[in-house]
Amino acid sequence: MTRPKAVVLLSGGLDSATVLAIAKAEGYEPYALSFRYGQRHVFELERAREVARSLGAGAHVVVDIDLRRFGGSALTADIDVPKDRSMDEMSHGIPITYVPARNTIFLSFALAWAETLGSSDIFVGVNALDYSGYPDCRPEYIAAFERMANLATRAGVEGTQHLKIHAPLITMTKAQIIRKGLELGVDYAITSSCYDPGTQGEPCGKCDSCQLRAKGFAEAGSADPLVHRFGSV
Amino acid sequence: MTRPKAVVLLSGGLDSATVLAIAKAEGYEPYALSFRYGQRHVFELERAREVARSLGAGAHVVVDIDLRRFGGSALTADIDVPKDRSMDEMSHGIPITYVPARNTIFLSFALAWAETLGSSDIFVGVNALDYSGYPDCRPEYIAAFERMANLATRAGVEGTQHLKIHAPLITMTKAQIIRKGLELGVDYAITSSCYDPGTQGEPCGKCDSCQLRAKGFAEAGSADPLVHRFGSV
Repeated sequence: MTRPKAVVLLSGGLDSATVLAIAKAEGYEPYALSFRYGQRHVFELERAREVARSLGAGAHVVVDIDLRRFGGSALTADIDVPKDRSMDEMSHGIPITYVPARNTIFLSFALAWAETLGSSDIFVGVNALDYSGYPDCRPEYIAAFERMANLATRAGVEGTQHLKIHAPLITMTKAQIIRKGLELGVDYAITSSCYDPGTQGEPCGKCDSCQLRAKGFAEAGSADPLVHRFGSV
Repeated sequence: MTRPKAVVLLSGGLDSATVLAIAKAEGYEPYALSFRYGQRHVFELERAREVARSLGAGAHVVVDIDLRRFGGSALTADIDVPKDRSMDEMSHGIPITYVPARNTIFLSFALAWAETLGSSDIFVGVNALDYSGYPDCRPEYIAAFERMANLATRAGVEGTQHLKIHAPLITMTKAQIIRKGLELGVDYAITSSCYDPGTQGEPCGKCDSCQLRAKGFAEAGSADPLVHRFGSV
C-alpha cells in the first residue's frame, strides 16, 4: 500500500529529527525540507542530510533563501548569540535569536511543496514550552496558518483535500521529546542543536539551545550521544 | 514629518506599479520587494527596478527564491503558457499559470521585512475580479493571512503594532486600476504584464495577462503606452 506523503520541516536539530520519526511512525512517507537561510549554524544542514537518510525520507530538498537581506536576528546577523543565560532569563520575552517570520516563510515553502506533491500533511517541530518566547511556535499561530493555507491553495478551494499542519511536539517537554525519539530509534548523535557550533559542529554548550538540550537529556535520564561524540562540552 | 514605512510587493506589472503609487499617495514611504523565483518572465524585474525608481521607493530589494524546485506551474516549469484563450475560458477554474503558494511565500517575506523595518503595513496588488481563478487573490485569503501574521510576529504578540495587509485593487476592474494609476502619474510604458515576453520584453499579446491588459486599456478609453513603445502586438 502506498503511504500518504507528508512534508516535514527538518533543521537537523533534535526536535525536527524526532518529528520526522513521528511522521514515519504515523504511516506517512516523509519528504524532508530544509533551508539555507544565512544561519550561523549552517553545519546543521549536513546533519539534516544524515537524519533524512537515516530515517528513510522519500526525498530531501534544501531551499536557498537569504533572510540576511532583512537582518534583525542573532541567528543571521552580526549580533552575538547569548550564552550562559539562566532558565529564568530564557523563559521571559522574545529572544534575540528569534528570526522575523521564519516559521511563516518555512511553512509557506512547505505548503508549495505539499501542493505539488499532492500531499495534505505538513509536519513541523515547533514547541511552545521550551521556546515560549517565539511567537510563531504557539498553537494559535499554527491554527491560523492552517486556516490561511486552506484558503490559499487550489486543493483547498476545490475541496479535494484539507491541509493539516501537524505540530506533534507543541506541548511536550524536551525530556518527553527525547524519550519519544529514543523509542522511535532516532540517532541523536547525528543531530545538531547548537546556535553557535565550532568548525567541526561541536556544540558550544552555553547557548540557550545547548542548555535546553542538556537539561532535556538529564530529565529524560539518558546520556546525550552528541556529548559522547565530541566529549564533554 | 517622517512617513510611515510600507512594504510593497512589486512585480513590475501594471497592478503592482499602481499599488506602489497608491501606497505613496496614502502617505507611506514605500519599500519595494520583488522576487527572482524562476519565472519565465524574469524581464519584469528590470521593469520593477524602473518602476521603483520612477515612483521614488525608499529601497528596492530583489530576493532570490527557487520555486522551480517544486514544479507545478506554467510560469516556472516546462509547460506552455496558454495563448488566445477567450474571456470565458479565463474566468473558469484555476489556470495552469497558478504558482503553488506563491502569494503566501511572497507575503511571508514581506512580513519578515516589515518586522525588521518596524513597519506595520504591507501592500499587495492582488485582484479578485480578473484573476478569479487564483485562490490566493481572494479577500478571505488576505484576511486569513493578516490574522496569521499578527500571531506570528514579535510586534503582534507584544501588541506594539497591528499589521495590516492592504489590497487596494482587490475589487477593482482592470479599467478602474488603469484609470487610478493614470491619475497618480504611473508610467505604464515601463511596466510589463506578459507571461511570455520576447527577448526585449515585447509582450506576446496572446497570453491571459496581455489580453486582460488590452481589454483594460480599451475599457479605460486609453491607449497602452507599452503598445506604443513596441508597436502593435
